[in-house]
Formats: sequence, structure tokens, C-alpha cells
Amino acid sequence: MQVQSPASVWSAAKFVGKKPVLPTVRAKSLFSSPATTTTTSEDRSPMAASGPKWAQKTITLPPLSRGCHLITPKITKEIDQDLSGFKCGLAHLFLQHTSASLTINENYDSDVRDDTETFLNRIVPEGTSAPWKHTLEGPDDMPAHIKSSMFGCALTVPITNGKLNMGTWQGIWLCEHRDYPTARKVVITLNGI
Amino acid sequence: MQVQSPASVWSAAKFVGKKPVLPTVRAKSLFSSPATTTTTSEDRSPMAASGPKWAQKTITLPPLSRGCHLITPKITKEIDQDLSGFKCGLAHLFLQHTSASLTINENYDSDVRDDTETFLNRIVPEGTSAPWKHTLEGPDDMPAHIKSSMFGCALTVPITNGKLNMGTWQGIWLCEHRDYPTARKVVITLNGI
Amino acid sequence: MQVQSPASVWSAAKFVGKKPVLPTVRAKSLFSSPATTTTTSEDRSPMAASGPKWAQKTITLPPLSRGCHLITPKITKEIDQDLSGFKCGLAHLFLQHTSASLTINENYDSDVRDDTETFLNRIVPEGTSAPWKHTLEGPDDMPAHIKSSMFGCALTVPITNGKLNMGTWQGIWLCEHRDYPTARKVVITLNGI
Repeated sequence: MQVQSPASVWSAAKFVGKKPVLPTVRAKSLFSSPATTTTTSEDRSPMAASGPKWAQKTITLPPLSRGCHLITPKITKEIDQDLSGFKCGLAHLFLQHTSASLTINENYDSDVRDDTETFLNRIVPEGTSAPWKHTLEGPDDMPAHIKSSMFGCALTVPITNGKLNMGTWQGIWLCEHRDYPTARKVVITLNGI
Repeated sequence: MQVQSPASVWSAAKFVGKKPVLPTVRAKSLFSSPATTTTTSEDRSPMAASGPKWAQKTITLPPLSRGCHLITPKITKEIDQDLSGFKCGLAHLFLQHTSASLTINENYDSDVRDDTETFLNRIVPEGTSAPWKHTLEGPDDMPAHIKSSMFGCALTVPITNGKLNMGTWQGIWLCEHRDYPTARKVVITLNGI
Repeated sequence: MQVQSPASVWSAAKFVGKKPVLPTVRAKSLFSSPATTTTTSEDRSPMAASGPKWAQKTITLPPLSRGCHLITPKITKEIDQDLSGFKCGLAHLFLQHTSASLTINENYDSDVRDDTETFLNRIVPEGTSAPWKHTLEGPDDMPAHIKSSMFGCALTVPITNGKLNMGTWQGIWLCEHRDYPTARKVVITLNGI
């Protein structure tokens, strides 16, 4: 699955999180199209950025507790350098799991994330009263699968002038639906000019 | 955020809605790749359209009342001229808000939209019985955030032969989840050949 | 809507399903960009695949019973040959209907799909107790519309080294929400290098 790509663009850059207790994000370079590699910090004129470009990498987010987490800083840290080479494009985030989800929602008040977790737990039965057949992986597993399809495992965000063009109050959330969290992989694909 | 682009392609075209009481949609040009600007109505041969193209603009939808609204005509009016230059591609719509949502659903019977609003209000508690911590912005705010993640804030629709390639009964809905509606911004990104 | 394209790339290939009782998937070629047509099985070097490419086709899935169905084999069978020409890209699947949905979830235990159907039926009222105004098309129709917006009608999956880059346990599901199933059309768009 590994494709050669210049370390300077999609290197396995260390993520320095805001919460120092969290492990480091790990990143695996998958691909950078030739045009991307010409966009260095000294060479960022509109002309240099005008060819269609693709870049793709897999990042590994550290285990997060059950609930909704704002991960915008983790994501932008990973892709900021490469994003700066895109005038216009799309960023696609794809979570490779079926018991967690990605969504875009409020980026300011952590109560919104807590209330969303409260909602999910109210709406999806768990435990002895739940009607699930799939119980071998624990009482939280089937509810986690359902929540994953409710919010989805992928996001596409516009890129404008080298930045993710989200609204003022929008942030990227990873919602962990399992009790015993594990590291989660996200394939990030950038495409644009 | 403003990038020069030819007014003829992504101009701030006035939207003439079907409901004359609604304010005009406002549009801000963000980007058109050079290839796009060569696609005029006199020059639309397959050859002329064969290079990869990108176009991006932000439109501002007028305030809409709480509930689900069919906005296909508003969207196509904004992008029809440019869509005609794409043989094959994808149109991405991104709502820059966390208390409204975009979805694709039935385009004919307004009862479907009313019933969907009824469903959302049944499923997400609101008012004194609701368990939310986030209440500072009004009783309808936290439910609005939850509904936004349930339906999502983004859509990607295939472009085929210059048109959005939706099914016969599909339409684009904006679902407004707040009681006091405000104007809503949508970043539209077109990519294709 | 028909655009000429070489039959060798997006031909109306017969789908050989795992369940022989199901009718054949029908496919309609829509578009292949010139670069794609140069990617044959004898000519698949990284250089040959380096130009941006687009391919688009519509496939018709056979009628499936109400419930959630794993359709990964059906989808990959349709696009495998063309996928092999993409080093890096995105695959977009768009269901042209408003009473079924596409989602990504667990690909192994069919109980997960059954439980998800159980969940959807619990959460969306149906029959005499349901509050719907839209009832002309049967008691299962309005619930089907709601479920369609809950899970959504479109998916975008990363392409890496000629394959859909999903997680180990991820699969593509078609969720049929109507009692009397019909054939369902999916527009598949591939874009990448």
C-alpha cells in the first residue's frame, strides 16, 4: 500500500496535541502527485499551484474515551502544510472503522459534545433491554455500529486559499462509540489546484 | 478569501426564486480555474471541456422558517451556467453552520418535508423535559445541533452532461433547525472535465 | 445522457453475484476521460496512470428485500477493472432514490445488518400510530423517506493503489426501506490519478 512520496510534503510529522496526555498521532504517507511536491514555502505563487494535485495520507488518532471529541487541531496540524498549496479543492476524511464516526458540529462549548453523546445513548438501546442479536463483542458494540451509520464515517470539506473553509463555529468531531477505545485510522485525501 | 475570477462565470447572479417574498440569494465568487473560463456558450465542444476544472463560490440563502425546504431551484439557478461546462464531475455543497442541515429527499410532496420535521422534533427532546446542559442559546439550539449531525451539513452530487445527475424524485433540502431563522451560507465546489 | 466511451473500460459487464437467485446488475456507461482509456492491463505503469482521470457509470442493482444488504462485492465487481488504473483518488457512489440508503458498516456478521434494520423500525413510527400526513404511497413510504435522510444516499471512499481503501471490517450497505423492493440505480464516479 506504500507509495513513494517526498518526506517534506507528507512526512510522518509528529502531532503536538493541546492535551499533552494524549499519545502522538501517527501518520503514514500514501501519495503525493508530482505537482504537489513543487509547492514549497518559497514557491507558492498561483501559477505554481495551478495544476490539479492529489495528496493522500493515513493518520492514526490516539485512543479517545467514549463520547464526542473535537479533533480539528489534530487534523489541521497534519495537513496544514500541504493545504497551503491548494487555492481551491476538497479535503476528504475517511474513518476506517464501524464503531466510531466523524461529524461536523459546534467547536466551542464542550457541553454540545456531551449533550450529543447523551442523545446517542438515549436513542440507541444498550444493555439488557436492547433487542440486539449481535452481542458477542459486548453490549456497547451493536449500539456503536448503529451510531456509526447515523453520523457516518466520512466528511468532505471545501478548501479555499489554502485552508479548510468551514464556518466560524464548525469543527470536526470524532465520536467514539465503544467503551474501551482504540486508536482510529483516518485516510485523508486532498484534491484541488 | 477573495480570488479573482471572471464575472461572466461565477458572477454574483441574482436569484429569482419561485416565492417572491424571499430575499435574493447572494453569491460571492471564490475561484474558477482557467479552463472553466474558456467554456462559453459558443464553445462547448467535448474538446474544449476536456481539461480538469474547478470552480467554487459561496452563496447565501435567505432566512427560512424552521422545517425542511426544497432548495433545488435556488441551487441550480446559481450553478447552471457553470455546470453546463462539465461533461462529468462532482458538485459539492457545504453548509457552513451547525444548527441546520442539507439532505437529499423527495422533491414533490411538501407533506414529506413536513413529516420529516415532525420526526426530527419527536426524536430530539426539546424544552423542559430535555436533558441538555447546553441551554444558553435557547431551548431549540441544542436540538438543532443534534439534528445537524443526524442529516449532515454537506452533499456531493454527480454531474453528468452538464446537469446534476439526481434521480427523478430527488431534490436538495435545507433543513432549518432554529426557531428564529438566519441567512445560511453554502460553499459550492464544482470539479470535473 | 449517453456519452461515447470505450466498451472495454466501462462496458456493461455482467455482474455475477454470490446469490445466484438475484438478477444481474445492469450497467450503463456514462463517461471515461481519455487518460482512462489508455490504462489497459498491459500498460499499468505509474507513469501511464499519472494524469487526472474521470470515469462515471450507472449501475442498476436488482430488487432487494426490506432491510440492510452488504453490496461490496456487487460494487467492486463493477469497478474493479477501472479502479486498477488509479494510484490515488476518490470513488463516489450516489443512489438515485429517496426510499433507500447507502451506508458503510460492518461487513462480517449479518446480525449487525438485521439489528440495524430493527433499530430503524423502532425509531421511525409506521402504521396506524404514526403521525404522517404523507400516506398515499403506503404505510412504509414516509418511514422510508426519513430513513433515507438518516443514513444518506451517497458515499465517498478513498482509492489507494487501485483499491477501495476501506477498513478491514468495513463494507458498503444498501438499505432498502420499502416493503416491495424495486431495482435501484447507483451512479458511480471515479476521480484520481
